[in-house]
Amino acid sequence: RTNTRLDPAVSHSFVYRGTFVHSTQQTALQILKDALLGVDAQGKVLISFICHKAVFFGLLHSSEFFMPGLVDTHIHASQYSYAGTALDMPLLQWLNAYTFPVESCFKDLEFARKVYTQIVRRTLRNGTTTACYFATIHTEASLLLGQIANDFGQRALVGKVCMDRNDCVKHYKETLQDSQDETCRFIKELLEKKYPLVKPVVTPRFAPSCTGALLEQLGEIAKNNNLHIQSHISETHEEVKLVKELFPESESYTDVYRKHNLLTDKTVMAHGCHLSDEELALFRETGASLSHCPNSNFSLCSGVLNVRNVLKHKVKLGLGTDVAGGYSASMLDAVRRALDASKVLTIQDPKYKTLSFEEVFRIATLGGSQALSLDDQTGNFEVGKDFDALRINVAAEGGPIDLIQDEEPKVGLNWLK
Amino acid sequence: RTNTRLDPAVSHSFVYRGTFVHSTQQTALQILKDALLGVDAQGKVLISFICHKAVFFGLLHSSEFFMPGLVDTHIHASQYSYAGTALDMPLLQWLNAYTFPVESCFKDLEFARKVYTQIVRRTLRNGTTTACYFATIHTEASLLLGQIANDFGQRALVGKVCMDRNDCVKHYKETLQDSQDETCRFIKELLEKKYPLVKPVVTPRFAPSCTGALLEQLGEIAKNNNLHIQSHISETHEEVKLVKELFPESESYTDVYRKHNLLTDKTVMAHGCHLSDEELALFRETGASLSHCPNSNFSLCSGVLNVRNVLKHKVKLGLGTDVAGGYSASMLDAVRRALDASKVLTIQDPKYKTLSFEEVFRIATLGGSQALSLDDQTGNFEVGKDFDALRINVAAEGGPIDLIQDEEPKVGLNWLK
Ligand SMILES: [Zn+2]
Ligand SMILES: [Zn+2]
Repeated sequence: RTNTRLDPAVSHSFVYRGTFVHSTQQTALQILKDALLGVDAQGKVLISFICHKAVFFGLLHSSEFFMPGLVDTHIHASQYSYAGTALDMPLLQWLNAYTFPVESCFKDLEFARKVYTQIVRRTLRNGTTTACYFATIHTEASLLLGQIANDFGQRALVGKVCMDRNDCVKHYKETLQDSQDETCRFIKELLEKKYPLVKPVVTPRFAPSCTGALLEQLGEIAKNNNLHIQSHISETHEEVKLVKELFPESESYTDVYRKHNLLTDKTVMAHGCHLSDEELALFRETGASLSHCPNSNFSLCSGVLNVRNVLKHKVKLGLGTDVAGGYSASMLDAVRRALDASKVLTIQDPKYKTLSFEEVFRIATLGGSQALSLDDQTGNFEVGKDFDALRINVAAEGGPIDLIQDEEPKVGLNWLK
Repeated sequence: RTNTRLDPAVSHSFVYRGTFVHSTQQTALQILKDALLGVDAQGKVLISFICHKAVFFGLLHSSEFFMPGLVDTHIHASQYSYAGTALDMPLLQWLNAYTFPVESCFKDLEFARKVYTQIVRRTLRNGTTTACYFATIHTEASLLLGQIANDFGQRALVGKVCMDRNDCVKHYKETLQDSQDETCRFIKELLEKKYPLVKPVVTPRFAPSCTGALLEQLGEIAKNNNLHIQSHISETHEEVKLVKELFPESESYTDVYRKHNLLTDKTVMAHGCHLSDEELALFRETGASLSHCPNSNFSLCSGVLNVRNVLKHKVKLGLGTDVAGGYSASMLDAVRRALDASKVLTIQDPKYKTLSFEEVFRIATLGGSQALSLDDQTGNFEVGKDFDALRINVAAEGGPIDLIQDEEPKVGLNWLK
């Protein structure tokens, strides 16, 4: 609500009147009742202010409200085919037993088309208007994911996975040269499509799957093209130990990425459950962000991220589903699990200040957009951003909510059931 | 699969052919493929065996299977009106701030009718074919809940809540005499209805809400009428401490109930997060059971039940939603949260053996029926039990599951999404 002009010379594509719920830097959950919001012909939020005289508007029912589209900051599109199964092992074994064999199937473009169509359709249906995807090592299939996201109108960062180290499933890796060449080809071809909402993201799988030489190259590529970067960090203790063995010259897991120029203000790292305060300080310094994936962290028994500590260190933070380490492709599930994770920390230490529902709502929307460095375009209803919005009707026929009386919609876990 | 006769003299109401999934004492998850199951005119499972020659049958599609109806061993029907909100306080404050004020509204029968209709309809829709309900202190409204469950065909234990101690919300309690008289009237009138699936359950709210005299009377009433009993135990540390103060003559929280004859083989106690091994031994001895309510335990930061230890002590165990301490009225949510709770214990101690999905499935079905001492009637597809079944179609149009290829239904978390 920074701009209260209504310029008659501008043709608004629409003005909506009703309840708007979003987050700002100042307010975890701002509820604007009987507000007006204009959207211009380009889909940008044009005006937004509280007013009781409307010029031309679409009126929301009292059981409805608008909220920002959810931002999934970490999801493996390629793992959707086994989501909800295979959660009986810790991370490193899980990768070898389930993930690598399935991901290698994406050489088959028809299989890829099927799975990628399903995950984009499903996440949109779940309210995810922005997603940061891991694909697989296959360039063609990764380009196809970009095309499908574009066709469905989902804002997406799409990453062709890079990995030149795999001791267990030996056929699922690239040579250093191939990984570099194919990454460049992937970026070039995806950018040439000029999809308005889809961008490439440089994607080293995680340090244990990459040689130092590959990490170095990927850091270069990202820098030269001013690209987004995504990877995993400090998900499990076992993994942290392995990284220490593989990169003995680095001071910490975070230092491995930093050394190779992979920690920038366009970097998002998944998990970070076991980062030290020194590592969080490095995130803060570089502007890199974390993606909190609580379903996955529970499901694979990886750990519980201390979100309060991340926020204290002023590290940008979003939520992720981490399909298929997380079994749910729904960001509403991620919101609920983030609350659970925080409550677990309070159970362990009653002095731990549990995250509020409002704070988690912000992390799932505005926080996610910041974590992906897309907060100039999405995340809330600030003037100038794209109108990435969900129209929620808590009284929808056949929906999950029973309203007792003609209540106003309560913004709480009840619409998350 | 204990009986392989097919008696031609008996007229079967139906024989189903397809996949059946259920639990037995020996097998956590038994999957019977291409099986036949006969249901007699009274709805009892008559024959069940694997056979490839069928006489007369309803054929399941390959994407379908039958599973036992879910058993919710602990749910507050009266608290459904605020489910999904108001989860920002620990138990004892939460009761005073939210629960008691709402429950006192059930004096109004029209309000009660609305909420009770919604919760019975909703839980049935969620697959709960058996529920063990707390109502409120109001006899008429509690009888109405019994009538509504009967009308919708849900198997239910219904408890008029008893409490003659309430220091904070002083209008929401009964006198000792009233509590006793109304409990007797409730039991008598509900039994007189002769509802085939609905029974009364003696329901002291929990020790801190009851004087010793009331507990004594309720133990008597249950004993004289051979009735079910339900209450709460050892949900939070603060509550355990309070009970120690209120009942200084008892050796433990469990001992309070035992002393008053409230621990029988028809007793189910919710939570038990902080029970000692000695207390679990008392449960085992008396045949009393526990209702594990993980959503509630997370949501109110109460604690994490060590289910493995409960099972080790051979205490009967079911799952409960504990609406509205738990925000979800779905037993599938309870299944997922039970897995999360177990995984949290593994995160805390990697040697802790996480519950398998199959084990939790058993607890949600057969375990629940045992916890409610209704396992002669429901819980799995054993011959002679009622055919309380859910017909699941994992490929249902508009459903939550995307099947990648013409897979057989995988029994796993994927159908729980
Ligand atoms: Zn991941
Ligand atoms: Zn309860």
